[in-house]
Amino acid sequence: MIRVGIVGSTGYGGCELVRFLLTHKEVEIKWVSSRTYTDQEYSSVYASYFKLLDQKCVDENLENYLDDVDVVFFATPQGVCAKMINQNVLNKVKVIDLSADYRIKDVATYERWYGMEHASPEFIKEAVYGLCEINRNKIKQARLIANPGCYPTCSILSIYPLAKAGLIDMDTLIIDAKSGVSGAGRGAKVANLYCEVNESIKAYGVTTHRHTPEIEEQLGYASKQEVLLNFTPHLIPMNRGILVTAYAKLKEGVTKEEIEAAYQCYDDEYFVRVLDSEKIPEVRNVKASNFVDINYKIDPRTKRVVMMGAMDNLVKGAAGQAIQNMNIMFGLDEKEGLLLAPAVL
Amino acid sequence: MIRVGIVGSTGYGGCELVRFLLTHKEVEIKWVSSRTYTDQEYSSVYASYFKLLDQKCVDENLENYLDDVDVVFFATPQGVCAKMINQNVLNKVKVIDLSADYRIKDVATYERWYGMEHASPEFIKEAVYGLCEINRNKIKQARLIANPGCYPTCSILSIYPLAKAGLIDMDTLIIDAKSGVSGAGRGAKVANLYCEVNESIKAYGVTTHRHTPEIEEQLGYASKQEVLLNFTPHLIPMNRGILVTAYAKLKEGVTKEEIEAAYQCYDDEYFVRVLDSEKIPEVRNVKASNFVDINYKIDPRTKRVVMMGAMDNLVKGAAGQAIQNMNIMFGLDEKEGLLLAPAVL
Amino acid sequence: MIRVGIVGSTGYGGCELVRFLLTHKEVEIKWVSSRTYTDQEYSSVYASYFKLLDQKCVDENLENYLDDVDVVFFATPQGVCAKMINQNVLNKVKVIDLSADYRIKDVATYERWYGMEHASPEFIKEAVYGLCEINRNKIKQARLIANPGCYPTCSILSIYPLAKAGLIDMDTLIIDAKSGVSGAGRGAKVANLYCEVNESIKAYGVTTHRHTPEIEEQLGYASKQEVLLNFTPHLIPMNRGILVTAYAKLKEGVTKEEIEAAYQCYDDEYFVRVLDSEKIPEVRNVKASNFVDINYKIDPRTKRVVMMGAMDNLVKGAAGQAIQNMNIMFGLDEKEGLLLAPAVL
Amino acid sequence: MIRVGIVGSTGYGGCELVRFLLTHKEVEIKWVSSRTYTDQEYSSVYASYFKLLDQKCVDENLENYLDDVDVVFFATPQGVCAKMINQNVLNKVKVIDLSADYRIKDVATYERWYGMEHASPEFIKEAVYGLCEINRNKIKQARLIANPGCYPTCSILSIYPLAKAGLIDMDTLIIDAKSGVSGAGRGAKVANLYCEVNESIKAYGVTTHRHTPEIEEQLGYASKQEVLLNFTPHLIPMNRGILVTAYAKLKEGVTKEEIEAAYQCYDDEYFVRVLDSEKIPEVRNVKASNFVDINYKIDPRTKRVVMMGAMDNLVKGAAGQAIQNMNIMFGLDEKEGLLLAPAVL
Repeated sequence: MIRVGIVGSTGYGGCELVRFLLTHKEVEIKWVSSRTYTDQEYSSVYASYFKLLDQKCVDENLENYLDDVDVVFFATPQGVCAKMINQNVLNKVKVIDLSADYRIKDVATYERWYGMEHASPEFIKEAVYGLCEINRNKIKQARLIANPGCYPTCSILSIYPLAKAGLIDMDTLIIDAKSGVSGAGRGAKVANLYCEVNESIKAYGVTTHRHTPEIEEQLGYASKQEVLLNFTPHLIPMNRGILVTAYAKLKEGVTKEEIEAAYQCYDDEYFVRVLDSEKIPEVRNVKASNFVDINYKIDPRTKRVVMMGAMDNLVKGAAGQAIQNMNIMFGLDEKEGLLLAPAVL
Repeated sequence: MIRVGIVGSTGYGGCELVRFLLTHKEVEIKWVSSRTYTDQEYSSVYASYFKLLDQKCVDENLENYLDDVDVVFFATPQGVCAKMINQNVLNKVKVIDLSADYRIKDVATYERWYGMEHASPEFIKEAVYGLCEINRNKIKQARLIANPGCYPTCSILSIYPLAKAGLIDMDTLIIDAKSGVSGAGRGAKVANLYCEVNESIKAYGVTTHRHTPEIEEQLGYASKQEVLLNFTPHLIPMNRGILVTAYAKLKEGVTKEEIEAAYQCYDDEYFVRVLDSEKIPEVRNVKASNFVDINYKIDPRTKRVVMMGAMDNLVKGAAGQAIQNMNIMFGLDEKEGLLLAPAVL
Repeated sequence: MIRVGIVGSTGYGGCELVRFLLTHKEVEIKWVSSRTYTDQEYSSVYASYFKLLDQKCVDENLENYLDDVDVVFFATPQGVCAKMINQNVLNKVKVIDLSADYRIKDVATYERWYGMEHASPEFIKEAVYGLCEINRNKIKQARLIANPGCYPTCSILSIYPLAKAGLIDMDTLIIDAKSGVSGAGRGAKVANLYCEVNESIKAYGVTTHRHTPEIEEQLGYASKQEVLLNFTPHLIPMNRGILVTAYAKLKEGVTKEEIEAAYQCYDDEYFVRVLDSEKIPEVRNVKASNFVDINYKIDPRTKRVVMMGAMDNLVKGAAGQAIQNMNIMFGLDEKEGLLLAPAVL
Repeated sequence: MIRVGIVGSTGYGGCELVRFLLTHKEVEIKWVSSRTYTDQEYSSVYASYFKLLDQKCVDENLENYLDDVDVVFFATPQGVCAKMINQNVLNKVKVIDLSADYRIKDVATYERWYGMEHASPEFIKEAVYGLCEINRNKIKQARLIANPGCYPTCSILSIYPLAKAGLIDMDTLIIDAKSGVSGAGRGAKVANLYCEVNESIKAYGVTTHRHTPEIEEQLGYASKQEVLLNFTPHLIPMNRGILVTAYAKLKEGVTKEEIEAAYQCYDDEYFVRVLDSEKIPEVRNVKASNFVDINYKIDPRTKRVVMMGAMDNLVKGAAGQAIQNMNIMFGLDEKEGLLLAPAVL
């Protein structure tokens, strides 16, 4: 059994980690920690876990709890994991960080977009960007995983095949993304009240959202060039899910067959489903599951390709991919604990 | 492996059966049938099952498919199962009927409330009312299960302990219930369009809803008296879930301790969670799971007890309980395939 | 022109007052006050009012602003109005209090249910309970209006005809009510976040909700007897609206005709619509309007009547009724500024 | 009084026309017609209009009803108006067509995108495209108005200033739009059921949506060049509203000041609100009103401008703009009957 600890367990990401880990047959949750709810029962924070996880939340003095676990998930706000990690921690346990602290290789870029100093830049190089389908081999060896952001996971997986194959003009890339409200976290803010979000939609972080450089960096690796793009997220009145609609000019002479061939890179991937021609990804078809549904449409009039991806922001965009990373790191079947079919309703 | 067939597989109940059966490790789905979508791939009806269940729906000529399966689920409209069942069917397979056809023992009562003639009343007596927590022993021996209705399951489980213990005046019983929209089925009706249901709430079937006699019959067995009650269902703008709020006068002199003791009848039940004092059942805490959360509140001013239950109408109220019945009938662990934690988000 | 001031203008009740008052042709909004947003533009709090009400919120030093207005609305939390009112205020302006401070005639009852000391009990006797359809004549003379609570407005109007006519057994009265989330206010609480409320339903304040004694008092006046009842509110995932489903035993021998006749008391009321037989009140049919839709259903099996009412909690349940009261107090057409048709979508 | 008739009154567009016209003080609704609900009371179709509009729907034999009215609104599916219009009709009444029949000047383009033959192309030239803010003068003289589509209204108004001023490269224009479900109409289709739309989002009509040529034509007039663009609509789980997010490259050397100046073209427009810098349009801020909220954000990294617009699809995108057109045609104050403040909740 893999012994697991979760730091920051009472946010929505932590809550979803618990949901999947409770039915993962190779895992035992040894402790869950929470700054806000220390010493309170986990099931008093989320009554859904009554009789399923009634243990009390421990504090965030990580050192006291390291010996009990093999792996620690950080489902914490930006900057927390970077402060808590050190050589001792990494010597004792594997770390999967669901925050952005180790995702961006260039510290200056991180500090500029996130507006904070990085507390432990010395571990950035070692950290592996945990986009499983693309970095699987590196993940196997890693002791520190930077679990990708929700928008980046969906965006990169949707665009990667064409970026990698060099079929699109990267300078024309525009990503218009839509997310459910759980992505905004569980903080008690007026802006996230039911009546403020329901029956509405808005863009946010226009031209300045922090996931932009993460997407640019990864698509830069794929396309072997520097990438600058527009990324605009929108808040949608639903609990879960992300939909990405991305646009790019096809390079001169690119054929439908080449595009089709490029997307075959996912043929052996269980969690990435490239839909049949004419089928459009919908959030409901992946909800509460670790699947990403992807497809594309060529516009012969404008010579653009529209790339689309749908995903659950809390699963493949957070907890599910974190567990997928754990499975890979510990040599388990990558799908273990993640086999739930989507809850279309 | 238990070989399973599903008649009426493309309604919401059938869809949810598939979701759970796909991860049930003792089950193989041999065929799914559909009148509307015969010969179409199941995943073309519900794209969430793409690459998970791509087999084509067979027609409803049940006799042709009996030899391939050990158990048949009927997730069909009222009257269909009663027409398709006969001795030959019951000799060959076990049957779990999610419709109301065999729930009510008195044929006249059934025909009056459902407004249709019963096509096979000869099997009513044999059929076991599949409320697992109450009829477990009979279910073990059954070959024909009348899977309880969604409202009845939640209502009966909430009220049963006090009815059984004789602590409430059954003549004062009022059940006010609220359900998500999936309970209305997948028929293409204006009344169930998004814009007609969203941002609204209404009662329906006031004083005439068909689940009334089913609840009355079962609470009659529990209380050993004839029961007449008011049951009012309401339509709520959410996909899943049922909340029951029931009211009754406490009998003279009944104490808090007696009530508490009565609810201890569920102490060994995994799927029925009697909440701690002062905790209120919420639909979100049971969503997409087979749990029923129950609690009660005594009002010393009016000498009434308010009994509350929350449940997922598609799971414990339909597909989940059907699988729980199957597990019991086949001697499996009752929880097999049903261990998903609630998806609070 | 009636010059209006609004204390506590930035809550949802205040926001809705502004929406109606902006198109009321006899009204000029002279100032809006806010503790939280003092000196900020009203349209920076609610961007919907950009270019419609850009004035800055004043502080809550009421005395400084009294001379500018003829009437002051208090859309404030419990206890605030009671503290701010005095003879000087009442000599200068008419006051319409949307909070509960002056609704309950018995101070001890108020203090017990609200858990606070009343700051100005000397004005309780003078205050008129502003349920327009019932107290219209007293409202005409009033200088201090206790604007009824949302649940009480809908509950009382639904039950009043039968209580008044003595057709139901008041001891058997049970009110099961359902409200949209705006009723919970605009406070930044985790419990009211989108993801905590959406796709769920729960009861709250079971047996202890503060609107209980308000309903009991008013129905006591109508039925000329002391009334003790059960009132259970539920939180529904929608922005606006209240639905009340109430149950009572009919007195021996009461006929359908007597019930019908009782509800004819509303025949001349514009804002109370008694629906045709068999029509069921729905929240969507009154949304964003000042209407209350009412109907009833007799159950010959149980000898009970089910009384139903649908209403917009922010309009007839708060701002709309407050303006209706103002219209009556100032001798205007009662409907002025309130003629909007319901926004069914 | 302007005497009004509405053909196709029972769809969502017709329903919203009725809502506004009922409080328009210069209008009398003489008849409403409906193919589906002929001879049924309008308030039996939409119970929200009980006691407000109880007249029976007439059939669609337009000729019989022409003499009773001064203007006819067509809120009908594509092709219906084109079939019903002739010289006699236009001689007798003014016509405002909310469908697409007369929006596109080139018949071949219309027939290609709409897949139907145009029944009365002889009137296309005369028809005025009723985008009030841009074609006000022509509208004054018109007897046949092609009321703009919902997506086109929001898209064109958001982009028009920069297209007109020649500040963006029209070849790079991408419009990503999001609409509430009422845009899909009131047809009884499985795809529009509550449970199919709720908690999800999807694109539709990708590269092929019929509003594309309408937007291209109008932006062509503004920019004085042929325009080909990508337009992708998405379905959002909310009743009302459209959000447009559009992207284009700024032409070399264009300054912030030039962009700001371009948007000042709306300075005198009541219904178009260009927001203050950094404010982002949200659907809730315009809901149930005739406002369009617009803003833009320059991205210095990519040299693109992101243009955003929020609008109510049923009001400024349909019924409200139709009434605005009527007001202009009849020489009334353009705002008459349209002064409702947005219902932010």
